[in-house]
Order: sequence, then C-alpha cells, then structure tokens
Amino acid sequence: MEILIINGPNLNLLGRREKEIYGEKSFEEYLPLLQARFTRHNICYFQSNSEGAIIDCLQAEGFSVDGIVLNAGAYTHTSIAIADAIRAISAPVIEVHLSNIHAREEYRRVSMIASACRGQIAGFGLDSYRLAIEALTLKR
Amino acid sequence: MEILIINGPNLNLLGRREKEIYGEKSFEEYLPLLQARFTRHNICYFQSNSEGAIIDCLQAEGFSVDGIVLNAGAYTHTSIAIADAIRAISAPVIEVHLSNIHAREEYRRVSMIASACRGQIAGFGLDSYRLAIEALTLKR
Amino acid sequence: MEILIINGPNLNLLGRREKEIYGEKSFEEYLPLLQARFTRHNICYFQSNSEGAIIDCLQAEGFSVDGIVLNAGAYTHTSIAIADAIRAISAPVIEVHLSNIHAREEYRRVSMIASACRGQIAGFGLDSYRLAIEALTLKR
Amino acid sequence: MEILIINGPNLNLLGRREKEIYGEKSFEEYLPLLQARFTRHNICYFQSNSEGAIIDCLQAEGFSVDGIVLNAGAYTHTSIAIADAIRAISAPVIEVHLSNIHAREEYRRVSMIASACRGQIAGFGLDSYRLAIEALTLKR
Amino acid sequence: MEILIINGPNLNLLGRREKEIYGEKSFEEYLPLLQARFTRHNICYFQSNSEGAIIDCLQAEGFSVDGIVLNAGAYTHTSIAIADAIRAISAPVIEVHLSNIHAREEYRRVSMIASACRGQIAGFGLDSYRLAIEALTLKR
Amino acid sequence: MEILIINGPNLNLLGRREKEIYGEKSFEEYLPLLQARFTRHNICYFQSNSEGAIIDCLQAEGFSVDGIVLNAGAYTHTSIAIADAIRAISAPVIEVHLSNIHAREEYRRVSMIASACRGQIAGFGLDSYRLAIEALTLKR
Amino acid sequence: MEILIINGPNLNLLGRREKEIYGEKSFEEYLPLLQARFTRHNICYFQSNSEGAIIDCLQAEGFSVDGIVLNAGAYTHTSIAIADAIRAISAPVIEVHLSNIHAREEYRRVSMIASACRGQIAGFGLDSYRLAIEALTLKR
Amino acid sequence: MEILIINGPNLNLLGRREKEIYGEKSFEEYLPLLQARFTRHNICYFQSNSEGAIIDCLQAEGFSVDGIVLNAGAYTHTSIAIADAIRAISAPVIEVHLSNIHAREEYRRVSMIASACRGQIAGFGLDSYRLAIEALTLKR
Amino acid sequence: MEILIINGPNLNLLGRREKEIYGEKSFEEYLPLLQARFTRHNICYFQSNSEGAIIDCLQAEGFSVDGIVLNAGAYTHTSIAIADAIRAISAPVIEVHLSNIHAREEYRRVSMIASACRGQIAGFGLDSYRLAIEALTLKR
Amino acid sequence: MEILIINGPNLNLLGRREKEIYGEKSFEEYLPLLQARFTRHNICYFQSNSEGAIIDCLQAEGFSVDGIVLNAGAYTHTSIAIADAIRAISAPVIEVHLSNIHAREEYRRVSMIASACRGQIAGFGLDSYRLAIEALTLKR
Amino acid sequence: MEILIINGPNLNLLGRREKEIYGEKSFEEYLPLLQARFTRHNICYFQSNSEGAIIDCLQAEGFSVDGIVLNAGAYTHTSIAIADAIRAISAPVIEVHLSNIHAREEYRRVSMIASACRGQIAGFGLDSYRLAIEALTLKR
Amino acid sequence: MEILIINGPNLNLLGRREKEIYGEKSFEEYLPLLQARFTRHNICYFQSNSEGAIIDCLQAEGFSVDGIVLNAGAYTHTSIAIADAIRAISAPVIEVHLSNIHAREEYRRVSMIASACRGQIAGFGLDSYRLAIEALTLKR
Repeated sequence: MEILIINGPNLNLLGRREKEIYGEKSFEEYLPLLQARFTRHNICYFQSNSEGAIIDCLQAEGFSVDGIVLNAGAYTHTSIAIADAIRAISAPVIEVHLSNIHAREEYRRVSMIASACRGQIAGFGLDSYRLAIEALTLKR
Repeated sequence: MEILIINGPNLNLLGRREKEIYGEKSFEEYLPLLQARFTRHNICYFQSNSEGAIIDCLQAEGFSVDGIVLNAGAYTHTSIAIADAIRAISAPVIEVHLSNIHAREEYRRVSMIASACRGQIAGFGLDSYRLAIEALTLKR
Repeated sequence: MEILIINGPNLNLLGRREKEIYGEKSFEEYLPLLQARFTRHNICYFQSNSEGAIIDCLQAEGFSVDGIVLNAGAYTHTSIAIADAIRAISAPVIEVHLSNIHAREEYRRVSMIASACRGQIAGFGLDSYRLAIEALTLKR
Repeated sequence: MEILIINGPNLNLLGRREKEIYGEKSFEEYLPLLQARFTRHNICYFQSNSEGAIIDCLQAEGFSVDGIVLNAGAYTHTSIAIADAIRAISAPVIEVHLSNIHAREEYRRVSMIASACRGQIAGFGLDSYRLAIEALTLKR
Repeated sequence: MEILIINGPNLNLLGRREKEIYGEKSFEEYLPLLQARFTRHNICYFQSNSEGAIIDCLQAEGFSVDGIVLNAGAYTHTSIAIADAIRAISAPVIEVHLSNIHAREEYRRVSMIASACRGQIAGFGLDSYRLAIEALTLKR
Repeated sequence: MEILIINGPNLNLLGRREKEIYGEKSFEEYLPLLQARFTRHNICYFQSNSEGAIIDCLQAEGFSVDGIVLNAGAYTHTSIAIADAIRAISAPVIEVHLSNIHAREEYRRVSMIASACRGQIAGFGLDSYRLAIEALTLKR
Repeated sequence: MEILIINGPNLNLLGRREKEIYGEKSFEEYLPLLQARFTRHNICYFQSNSEGAIIDCLQAEGFSVDGIVLNAGAYTHTSIAIADAIRAISAPVIEVHLSNIHAREEYRRVSMIASACRGQIAGFGLDSYRLAIEALTLKR
Repeated sequence: MEILIINGPNLNLLGRREKEIYGEKSFEEYLPLLQARFTRHNICYFQSNSEGAIIDCLQAEGFSVDGIVLNAGAYTHTSIAIADAIRAISAPVIEVHLSNIHAREEYRRVSMIASACRGQIAGFGLDSYRLAIEALTLKR
Repeated sequence: MEILIINGPNLNLLGRREKEIYGEKSFEEYLPLLQARFTRHNICYFQSNSEGAIIDCLQAEGFSVDGIVLNAGAYTHTSIAIADAIRAISAPVIEVHLSNIHAREEYRRVSMIASACRGQIAGFGLDSYRLAIEALTLKR
Repeated sequence: MEILIINGPNLNLLGRREKEIYGEKSFEEYLPLLQARFTRHNICYFQSNSEGAIIDCLQAEGFSVDGIVLNAGAYTHTSIAIADAIRAISAPVIEVHLSNIHAREEYRRVSMIASACRGQIAGFGLDSYRLAIEALTLKR
Repeated sequence: MEILIINGPNLNLLGRREKEIYGEKSFEEYLPLLQARFTRHNICYFQSNSEGAIIDCLQAEGFSVDGIVLNAGAYTHTSIAIADAIRAISAPVIEVHLSNIHAREEYRRVSMIASACRGQIAGFGLDSYRLAIEALTLKR
Repeated sequence: MEILIINGPNLNLLGRREKEIYGEKSFEEYLPLLQARFTRHNICYFQSNSEGAIIDCLQAEGFSVDGIVLNAGAYTHTSIAIADAIRAISAPVIEVHLSNIHAREEYRRVSMIASACRGQIAGFGLDSYRLAIEALTLKR
C-alpha cells in the first residue's frame, strides 16, 4: 500500500516544542522507525505550516495513494477547507493527534475535519501514527 | 471592463468532487464559455487553495480591475483576513457560491466576507458566475 | 415563461422609505422597465404586508407558474410558514433582496426561507429582480 | 394634533382576558375617557389581530397623523416587519404596554420594535396610553 | 359537545405537499370520516394561512365551543400571539401535529403555544386529530 | 396485541407524590381499569427507577411485543441510552407524559427520546396511557 | 405626595456629557421647572455615582415617601443589589431613562431592576421624569 | 497483561441493532477472534446497560488489571460519574467507539469521559477494540 | 432523630481516590466518629454507584426518617430523577459536598438537585456531613 | 478565635424585607444570640451596602482575624472585586446565604466569590451563620 | 502635562497579594520611581476600592488633566458606569493591566471599559504604567 | 538586542487602506523612523498575507532573536496555529494593534494569540510598535 503521512503546523518542531505535552522525539527521528515497522508498505511524509499547501498535497496525492494519516495540528480546529479537500479526494483519511485533544483546552476539543475522516486516533504520542497505519492496513 | 474571477480552495476540483453538490463540469471547461458570452469584457481567472495567495491576488489586482467575482470556497466562512482585503481595495467584489450555502450545514450559512462585498449570488451552479458578471456590468 | 414576482411587507413603500438603503424608485415604476426587458416572458406581480396573504398567493400560483421571484422582506427572517409553502409548491423560487442582508443587523443575516429556495440574490438594489429573472430563464 | 392608537392581537379582549394581569376594563370603555381628557386632540383607534393589517394601518396613516401610540401586543416580541413599517413612516411612534413586560416571561422582555420607536412606556395599565399621549403632545 | 378543529398554514395542501412526511390524504377527505366516528359530537373546521385569522377564530369561538383541536402548523414555533389567544379564551385547546415534531429540524422542536394548551399529541398522522377528540371527550 | 407499559423513575409514587401535578391515583389502581377497557389486548407493566433496568426491559421485550408505551419520567430529558435502545428494537414506542412537559421547567421541555419514538402524548394525566394504547391499536 | 427622584452614575454630568444623546440641559436646571409644574407635591432629589449610596438612599427614604422615580444610569444593567433594595422597600418605584435604552447597545437593553419596579418610561429625555411623576400621581 | 474490555448500554445488541451504523457481527462473535489474536494477554469482558454497574466494575477491576478498553456507549456523552471512576482507579483506560462519533449527531460529539482517558480511538468498527489493545500493549 | 446519610458514585473510594481533592480518610473510618458525636440520634448509611438504587433508597426511607444528608457525587450535576425523588418524599434533604464544587470545573458548578433540597453545605471535607447533621438537628 | 461576620447589601433590612424569604428576625437581634453561643470566640460584625466598603473591610481585617463569615448578598453574583479581595487576604472566608440560592432565580445561582472561599453554606436562614462559625472553629 | 493615575480595587495590596501574579513591589514604592522618570510631567495618583469613588475622581479631574492612566482592576470586567464616565470626560484615558488579562480566566478577558479608552496596555507588570505614560506623552 | 517585527495580512496596505481607521502612513515609511529611534537595537521586519508564512518566520527566527513584535492582523482572531508557534519558540512575543480592537466589531475583540504572548498593546496607531519595542527593551 501507498500511505501518505501529512503533518500540519508546528509539528516540524516536535522534540523542541512544549516537550511535556508533545514528547522529546522529532518526527524525523520517528519516521524511519515507522517505515522499518511497516516494510511491506510505502510510507511518504509531508509537512507544512500552510493550510493551502496541505490542501494542495491532499489534492495532488489523494487520488493515487491508498490511505492518508493526517495530523492537521491547529488547523484541525478551524479549517473547513481541509475538510472539504478530504471529502473531495478518494483515499481514506485517518485523523491522528499526539495528545488527547478531548482532554485539553475547550477550543481543541472541536475537530472541523473529523466528519470527513474515516476515524480518529488521539492521545498515544507518536504511536498514534503507528496505530493509524495499522488501521489503514487492516484486512476488512 | 476588466473583470477578475477568483476561486478559493477545492474549486480546482470542480467536476471531480462531490458531483451531486457541485456538478460535473470543471471551471476550466466553463471559463471559455463565459468569456465567449461576454466578449466586450476582459475576464481573467485566478485560483488558489491558499488564503494568503487569495489576499495577495486581491491586493495586486484590486486597485486596477473594474470588478471582482469571488468564490472564496470554505474560506468564506472563516476568513476575516480576506474580508479585510476586500475592504482595503477599490474594485467592487461580488460573492458567489455554486450551491445555496444557506440551505447547507450550519457552519456554511455564515459568511465572514459578505459584509465587505457589494452583493451575493448563491445556488445557481456555474451560472452564479455569469449572473455575477451581469451584475457587475449592469448600467446603473 | 410565466413568472411571478412576490414582494413582502413594506416593499410597497419603495421610493418613500429609508431611501439611503432602499433607493429612490418605487417598484411600480420599476416593473414596466423589467417587463420591457423580458418581453418573451409574462411577468406578474403581487405585494402584501400579510404573511398569510403571501402564503395564499404562493399556494394559488405555485403549481401553475414557471418560476417565482420572492422578496419576503422582514418575513425572510421569521417565517417558517412561508418556507413551508415554498417547499409545498412545484415552481422554483428565487429569494431576492435589495440590500446585502448579510452586511446589516445581526437579525437580518438569518434567512428562514433560504433552505427552501433554489438560490439567493442580494445586494443589487432593484437589479436583484432582473438577475433573478435571468437566473430563472437560463437554459440549463 | 391627530393621534392614532393602534392595538395589536388580543387587546380587543381587554376586560375579558387574564384580568389579574390586564385589568377589568375593556379598551372600548377606556377610549371615551381618554378622548374626554385630551379634547384638544383628535384621537383615533385601530385594533387588529393581524400583523399585516397593523402594517397596512401604519403605512396608511403614518404619513399624515402627528403621532402614533402603538401597543403591538405579542407582535412586539417577534415582528421585524412592524419595526420596518415604523421606520418607513414619518410620524413618531411611542411603544406602550399595559404590564411591565420587563418583569414577565423571558420572551416578553425583548422588543423587536423598540429600536424603531421614540420611547417606551410600560407597566401602568391603561394609563400607559394616557402617558404616551402626554409624551406625544409635550412641548419640546 | 361542540368541538372546533383549527388548521394553520399549508395544512390545506395536505395530500399535495411533501407526501412522504404528511401523507396522501387531504384534510377535506379525512374530516367526514372523523365526523362519522364521533356522531354524538358536533365537529366544525376552520383553516387559514393567516396568523391573525387564526386568532380571530380562536376569539370568536373560544368562549362558546367545548373544546378546540389546534394544529397551528408553522406558527406553532413562532406565534406568541396565538398562545396569548389560547390563554385568553375559556375552551380547552389540544395541540396536535401530524408528524413527530420532536424528531425533526431543531426549529420545529420548540412550541410557543404548548404552555397555553392542555396537552399535546404528535406523530400519528391524521389520527392525531382523532386522538385529540377522544382526549377532549373523555370523562374525567 | 401484546402491549407493554414501561414507567420510569418515581412513577411508582403516583398518588403519593406532588399530587397537584400528578394526581391522586396510583398506577397500580389505574392499571386494572386500563386492562378492563382494552380486553382484546394483553397489557403488561414494568416500572423501575433504574435507567439500566429500563434498557434491559426494552431489549428483552422489544423484539416480541407489538407496541410499547413509555413514560421515562425524568430520564426523558437526559437519557441517550434509552433512546438508543428504542432505536435498536423492532416494536414501536409511544412516549407519554402525565403532565404537559412543554409547559413546565425549561429542562423538562427537551426530550432526548422523542426522536426515537413514533409519537408523543402529553398532558392528559393517566388518560395519556389510554390514548397511547388507542394510538398503538388503531387500524391504519 | 412626597416624591423622591434618584439619579445614578454620571447623571450629574447632564448638559456636559455626550450632548447628542443626553441633551444640553443639566438636571439642576431642570429640577425647579419640574417642581414648579407639580406644586401640590413635594419633590426631593438625590444623586450619587455610588451603587451603595443609592441603596442607602432607597432604604432610608423608601419606607416614608409616596413614590420614587429612579434613573439608575449604568447600574440599571448590572445591579441586582439595587433591585433587591427596591423589592425591600414599600414605596413604588418607577424606572426612567433619558434615552430609549432598547434602541442602544446590546448591553443597555437589559434592565436588572425592571422586574422590581412598577413600570418603565424611556426615551423622552428629561420629560421622562415628568411623565413618571404623572404616573405616580395618577388617581387609580 | 490483564486487559478488561467494558461495553456500555446497547452494545449487547451489536449485530441486531442499526446494522448500517454498527455492523452485522455481535461482540460475542468478535471476542474469541480478538483473544486469538492476543494470546499472550488475558482479555476479559464485561457488558452492562447500567451506569452504576459499569462504575462498580471499573472500581472492582481497575486497581488490578493492566489496562481497560472502554466503550461506554451512550453514557460517553452524559456520565460524569463514569469519568470520576476512571480518574479514581489506577489502570489506564482507552476510550473506543465503533463509529466516528465526531461525524454524527451534535450530542454524540461531546465525550464526558475523554478527559479521564489516556486516548481515544473511534470509527474503525470492531477493529477499534483491536487497535486499543495494541495501544495498551505497546512498549513505550 | 432518625438520620440517613446517602453517598453516591465513587464515594466508596474515599481515601483511595484523588487524595489531594478528597482527603485520606475513608467514609467507613469517618462514620463511627460521626455516630459517636451525635449519640442522641440514630445515623444510618447507604452508598451506591447506581442512580436507580439511590432513588430506591430515597423512596424507601424518605417517608420515615427525620432527615437525609445526601452527597450525590457526580449525579449531583446530571440527575433530574434524583431531584424528583427528593421532591416526592417527606423528609428534608440537605445536599453536601466534600469539595467546594463552586470552585471546580464548570460542569461541577451546576446542581440539578439543589432546588429540591433544604440547603447546601460544600467545601469542608468530611466535616460537611457533621455540619449537615447539625443543621438537621437544630431547634428552629 | 477572632471571627468577623460581614453582611452585604440589604441585609440590614432583615426582618423588614420580604419576610417569606428572609424571615422575621433582624440580624441585630440575632447577633447577641450567636455571640452567647460561642462565648470562647470573639465575634465582630460589619454591614455595608457598598461593594467598596466591603472590600475595604476585608482588606483591613483579613490579615488579622482568624476567619470571616461573608454573606455578600446580591454582590455574590456580580462582584469579581470582592472575590479578588478574598484571594488577597490570609484569613479563610466562608460564604453563607440565608436562602438556598441554588433554588432561586437563574442569576442567583452563580456565585462569583465561591471560587475564592473555603466553602459555602446556604439555605438554613440565620442558622447558616452559626453553622459557618462551627465550620471555622472545627478542629481539623 | 498633568497626568492622573487611577488604581481600582485591591491594587492597594500590590506587593502583599498573590505575588506570583502581581509581583512583589507595592504601588507606593513604584510611584516615586515613575515620577523620577517623567520629571517634566506632573503625575498624581488616586486609589479606591469603590466604583463610585473612581467615577467621582474621573469626573472631578477628567476635564482638567491632560491624560489618565486607569487600572480599574476587577471593575474592568463589570463596570458600564466607569465606561460611561470615561466617555463623559474630555481627557484621554489609557487602560492598563499588570497581567495579560487575555491569558487569564474567561471572565477577565472581557473589558467593559476598553471601548471608551484610547488604547490598552496589558501584561508588563508595573511597567504597564510607564508605557502608558509614554503613550500619553508621545508627540503625534 | 535583535528585534523582529512581524506584520500579518493587509498591513502592507497601510496608508492606502481605510485611512480613517489605520492612518495615512505606510509601514515602510514608518520603519526607518523606528530604527532611528532605537539605534542600539537591530530591528528587522517581515510581512506576509499568509498564515503559514508567518508561522514559518516565527519558527525560523524565534529561537535566535531577543524579542518579537507581532501584529497578526486578522489572523489575531482566528489562528490557533500562530498561537501554537508562539508557544513553541523561545523569544518573547508582544502583540500589537494599530486600532483599539476592544472597541471594534465583536469578532475583533477576541484574540486567539493573546494567551501565548507576554503582553498586548493596542490603540496607539504606529506608536503601538514603538511602545512594544520599549516594553521589550526595558530593564527588568
């Protein structure tokens, strides 16, 4: 399977940013471990701080990959445009979050993109990505 | 008259995306028909998935064109920044929507940009653009 | 085509009422100009200040005319009964407004009838009616 | 001065209806007393249970009388259309209520028409009308 | 017993209107069946699309009939004036609805008149009227 | 027909509890009268103060009885779980209330279970149950 | 009759303050005119910018005067304590406002004290006081 | 590891209930498959329709098992008491849902228990349980 | 006097649960101290995690004991059914809380049962029970 | 112990004011009884209708007394400033109310000062003060 | 320039009160440093815990000084009366706060007085005052 | 000190845009004056209409400069992503606004980024930047 991981704003700072919430490891360190675990699948990665670039990426890849793991970061809570892009493409999208967003500030408990995604996995740190890939690759 | 059409996020997927709502024709197919209809006017076209690029375009063209037809897509409902750009420029802006946004999800019924536009046309599919150009070119 | 224009409360005072918002021309002056423009169509006109009379008219004509242009005035914002009548009849209804209701008082931004109409045209003064008739008569 | 009193829905039942709130005297009994008190002024009276008829009356008389005393009854709390009619006419309108609407059910504390009226007098039973006429006839 | 049935806006279109919600039979077809079932009672019928006319009818009949079955249609959700009329008269009023209004759009779940009625019966199609008449004629 | 009546919390105290609202007769006194009236139907009865026990009962009986009359008492206003159980079973459920819940405290006007029921009957005291059984047994 | 006028915060600046809203005359200039008009009544006057001092005054005088005219200024919209004081005393209190508070900012449309007062007069400038005194001295 | 799965109300009807949402397989059929997959762990199962029984179970087992997978069903959205029980015990709890609750009715988007859980997995049908067990058993 | 103490969900974990909020002593350790202090009164104790069982207990004892001290735990904030049970019985009920619920999470500041109780004592740890018993046994 | 009782607005009218809510005894009559009961403690008393004076008193005494019993009256519901003063001082403050504020008007159910106090006692009439002093003087 | 600094409730406790938020220095210690810095300007100071006294001061000085620096403390969030006073006077007023009120409790994020002030400076501790004086004394 | 000024959307139009609100001078004209004033500090400048580019800039510079002055323009009111970026970096950020946002439209009074900034300065036109730099460079 072709699997694309998309990370939204500030996730490029993992390991440098509010470590008590987001942990000490950067995504760049984590990605090879993830790829090593799922050697039968091709896992690509894209990060941007720009809402428009995330939509561009969803549109460019969303008709050809087999699944997308999306951590939209703060755009999770505000972006109808990303949700529309998810609805427009054919690949299934799984929403992930490092922290349990339902246990944080009020404005982080609303996901504008959830209704366009197949499912949501939140609260398991970087393992949220691994679980999402397992969810995508499960035989149904 | 110089007329600029600006399309926001996901409108580049017209004809591929949720066809039961947005129809089967792409904007690229529609534009020549529109230009053919209004041969006395010069109609330009810009599309972007990025809020910032839409603002850049409004600023760059909004002091020289005679009118702008804007379908801001999902940014309609969230972007104060686009509304501010519309207020900042001198060209009149008409807000259009393919679908009748007032008959859709709650969060699509609020337009943050409406108060900065001359008027709104919604619900006529691609014809919304044609009506908007007629509105711009009406003798008053 | 048989086209019916229905005007709601206080629109019989156009030209006398808050001219800075609604303009200087009465609808009676405007109607012949409109009819002259669309000589191939039969355009009728009805105005009432009564919600019930508007519903009566929608019911009486709404199964026989080819399209209705409705400016429900202030009832736009409060009348579920008019919306129900629009849903009950077979003719398509286009909602029009002289002013850009989305740029006015909070309570004028909600349209109770929008979800029952084909589309909405707002903010072009009396030209809103002309654009609505063009919308109705467009070949699809 | 020509003064018009307009009473809205259910005020024709004064003296028969919830007497502990609205008192025992009908408006028909009260009107001659009121006219006797203000013999220098011509006081007319109109009542209707219909929102549309109240608007018709405001429009018909509102450009010729010198002042209007309006008890819109329950339409006070819901009618944007009556408020628009008040704004459309030239005569000043004073809003009156028999009971102190601000001390009653939540939904009776909001007046949709207040912002279009010169002032409001509430809570003095039938004397609210007398005070309103005094307010209209005061030399300024 | 003298029993009055009052139907509000758009209920004269029963059998023609949104049949999947409101059914295929008109009220005119149903009324004789209802009268045949309750031959010991005198059942009258009134329908109007006008809020004012419904109030007029409640006032005219509400001090002489023994009970009223009221389907206020869309005015159920907006009319304080009808609720006031119900409170003003002496006959008990039972609120009925064809559909289960509590299972429909948000704005149809609020009844402004319920607090003035003896009880509410909703969701049984035309049988809601029959049950209401039984409720009125029950020996207590 | 097999008909099950389910009463929720505190309805076992009928006749002892706030008699000015709920009346002087206990449900145990009323049930034989009800059964005597509908001798052609088999009417069973269950009461519990426990939300879980009511769900257990709905699940146990709801695939075999022909209809259920449910007065969920205070759980009406809070229990999504009971509503889910009603949706899960095959028997039609009619919601009843002794008092007119729409005329009481704000929090009693919302029914979480209404959208899962066929219809609602409220405000007729113990006769609400009789009307509900008539509604269930009507030939359609 | 003994009548007390109480003015709340900033009303001592009448004639100096936002004259387009509140007029050009100070209350000190107006009071003698008012006293001259009602020579049969004894009219006293108290002003304070302090919520506590207004309550002190209501308590000190509210068991002995025959009526109180209260313009609580901005405390109208926030003071439960003044409302409690009005409820505690025996003299009737009439709430007055120079401007039509119902036509101003949202937060000025709510009166916390209205439910404790006999009635409300708003929008007649300084004449609001004169009308309030007439209301107090009317034979009932 | 000792792992406890707790299912809340109506989940005992899986396979019989609204199959288009919840699927065709019962939990009793699924559990052996799950246990077969995680043979190194001891997986127990408890289901109840009663909020109290779920709390009893959490308290009884929550100090001895190594992890809990909780699908609280409809109690997810209303039960502060279950959330308190989760906070009181020492075992980590993972919240699971068959459907993507964030894409359903408004009242299903709020989880009262989320803030007490380690993480949330929703939208993967019965596989949500498998992913949750993987999450619990991940080496950290 | 016969006095009944009822504790709701999770209060059986006192001394084990979030000790920084609820303290280190279990209720079982505290009860004998309390009984020793009020030797002239008979103090019974009941705890349950089940809303239904709490209602059962209130009904069973609430007509014979002289007073009830109720800490409904999390049900305080959600249970209309418990409030109805309190209203149904004859014994006075005093609401207690260990912590100052008014200083905690937003959803803990609302008590659904308060309006049915004689009074509320919150914030004194286990001493809240002692103060409540003193309140019950005060000579009035 | 040095204990200070502070009473807010209108509590100086106890015994004269709305006796069905607040009782027939004045605080001046009650204070000696209270002092007689707690002869080992020195109980002082301060009352003011002024928010500022209450803050002055809290500041002046709040660093030297051993505890404060505060009935802030209507300021309970509006005063952030008093809450800030309580937080600023060192003495513990117990909030008391004569009536059960949680069972009264909506706006009396919110306490702005509760989160700054140690605990709250409400609904026991003048005995609320006695219970508060017991709470302050309990050995912990 | 004549500059007046006004401090509201509890700011006289600076240096004694919640030092982690408000710092260790009292305003009395800070004022001479401030005066030393701006020797060309005359800086006066007033503090009160009373809303009325702050209004009195604004009125007394607000027509003669050249600028006012106002830290209204907790009255910032509740006082329409102070905002009215600021609007009434001629001197410009700058709102200051020690802490960043926008990062604190919800109720501290709303400023009732902001709309009447020239600008706002918040979050710089005692330096907020110095910056405000610089703002007042800037040449424009 | 290294100081970075970041301007958000439409601030590149200063001097051309709504001059009555934002003034006549462009930021490009103002910047040299500012640099001239603070010659001991190195002041850089970045402007973008794109939310993503602003985040990129904050991330790129926010670990090396000594302070940032941020006018996020309309993104102030909507961008959680910018707030997250501010929290992620090490440099202190001061929020500035030309106009007093607290005195403008409702939606401009909420700052999503304020809670991540050290402080806020609003309402002083271009001088807001100068005051912010002074705030950054103050010796503490």
